[in-house]
Amino acid sequence: MNLLTIGTVAFDNIETPKGKADRVIGGAATYISLAASYFVDKQSIVSIIGGDFPESELRHLEKKGINLEGVEIVQDGKSFFWGGKYHDNMNKRDTLFTELNVLADFKPKVPKIAKKTKYVMLGNLAPNDQLSVIKQMDKQPKLIALDTMNFWMDTSMKDLKKVIKKVDILTINDEEARQLSGEYSLVNAAKVIHKMGPKYLVIKKGEHGALVFNGDKKFFAPALPLAEVADPTGAGDTFAGGMMGYLASTNKTGWEQMKSAVIYGSVMASFCVEDFSIRKLKNLKKSDIKKRIKEFEKLTNFSL
Amino acid sequence: MNLLTIGTVAFDNIETPKGKADRVIGGAATYISLAASYFVDKQSIVSIIGGDFPESELRHLEKKGINLEGVEIVQDGKSFFWGGKYHDNMNKRDTLFTELNVLADFKPKVPKIAKKTKYVMLGNLAPNDQLSVIKQMDKQPKLIALDTMNFWMDTSMKDLKKVIKKVDILTINDEEARQLSGEYSLVNAAKVIHKMGPKYLVIKKGEHGALVFNGDKKFFAPALPLAEVADPTGAGDTFAGGMMGYLASTNKTGWEQMKSAVIYGSVMASFCVEDFSIRKLKNLKKSDIKKRIKEFEKLTNFSL
Repeated sequence: MNLLTIGTVAFDNIETPKGKADRVIGGAATYISLAASYFVDKQSIVSIIGGDFPESELRHLEKKGINLEGVEIVQDGKSFFWGGKYHDNMNKRDTLFTELNVLADFKPKVPKIAKKTKYVMLGNLAPNDQLSVIKQMDKQPKLIALDTMNFWMDTSMKDLKKVIKKVDILTINDEEARQLSGEYSLVNAAKVIHKMGPKYLVIKKGEHGALVFNGDKKFFAPALPLAEVADPTGAGDTFAGGMMGYLASTNKTGWEQMKSAVIYGSVMASFCVEDFSIRKLKNLKKSDIKKRIKEFEKLTNFSL
Repeated sequence: MNLLTIGTVAFDNIETPKGKADRVIGGAATYISLAASYFVDKQSIVSIIGGDFPESELRHLEKKGINLEGVEIVQDGKSFFWGGKYHDNMNKRDTLFTELNVLADFKPKVPKIAKKTKYVMLGNLAPNDQLSVIKQMDKQPKLIALDTMNFWMDTSMKDLKKVIKKVDILTINDEEARQLSGEYSLVNAAKVIHKMGPKYLVIKKGEHGALVFNGDKKFFAPALPLAEVADPTGAGDTFAGGMMGYLASTNKTGWEQMKSAVIYGSVMASFCVEDFSIRKLKNLKKSDIKKRIKEFEKLTNFSL
């Protein structure tokens, strides 16, 4: 396997100023693996779903090269279900409901076929579950990325710090970087967080782009300005999926690869938000991605 | 003259999480012209001050090549005085007081020596005063930039639109671009605003950088991530001053120059915020600016 991802596979109810979508496909692992599928052929998901999850959607993921052996199906259970409503500016959202359902008893099991995977993406979940995946690997992966959020900082900081210590990349937003480090300046926050373990800190700023720190080195990738944003759900996961998919495709982990990886992440996220749910991510062409990469180059390249 | 600027020359009381500064030098024209002084030798300010404005500060501006013939001094009047307090995140501030003082009766007079200036920067002021400066020019300047804010959109939209029609560059923040255009997407806002007149729309996003639109072309300049931000006051004006100073130094107005200009603007603003008032801007070395340009290149350049 090129990439192993742990995360939710779920249903979402989404309301944005551009419309509503009920009981559509969502979940961190879904977005991550779909985005990564444009860079790697063989990947594996560890997750849990209920018997209510559409068979056709599972087949679509498999067609994209995503192995589902690690996805436990609880036939008489219901899939994780989240509902949210975005504010007018789409930078903020309110959670309307969270039904954990089968996720409440999730014990991640890494299938044998994925235990030697070199690139591992730990999607946003309880830190203990993320840690469990690392422990189940046959040997130390080449690169582990961790996504988390303020909820785990508020409720499970001790466990979170344990898993942060073991990863190479941490992806969080600016407020979370401040909370985790106790530093307001992101430059100072990065110094504190590097000491906790991760060599790379990726700060996701949504429509304001992404900032990567690696010691004294910094790199900034803007978000592509778009004419229409329909639904920001999954943009951060899609970003992470593009980033990790690209890194896995290079089989390298250096600074130059990391810079390219966040550009690819940003490109994939720009598609994600243009339609509801995973609609736009399902059937992109390589030429769509190439075209958008060109737009990024034009947006940021200058010579003085 | 290389550059003509209209704007306030004033006192500020500033309170930020990093400290307080009382009755320090401020004003849009002060920041703009100081930033521009690192790019052009001869510039002119049109403004008004009271007899209370320190002689030493005026001499310092003159030493930087800033001609003050257009600055009316009302000996028995008091200079414009603004007080503000920044929130913890420094992205928001509350105005504590605004004493217009001599500004209440300001009638801008462009001195003869500046009437042929090719580059004109209209700092944030009543649209009628900005328009009056354009009318006083001997001939159409090569490039006019306009800075404004939501206050003028709320109170003088008709006059504002008149002056917007006559300028080449409009600099506003993202919320103001949305208000002016009635479009939420900045891409769509730019289309509407281009039709109002300006060829270039520069959207200032503070710590999130600046975005420039020119028809279908877009360019993004991030703000340099800084370890310490002491005082954001004047950052937008400093940005505009660096931008216009650089453009005036090239004697060109094309897209490539504009891209470089916003990088220089962003660099100058990065110095501005590192100390209170104009302290850091007063005595920069060319080598300081060059070094920071290199940091910008590293921050944004990538090759895929």
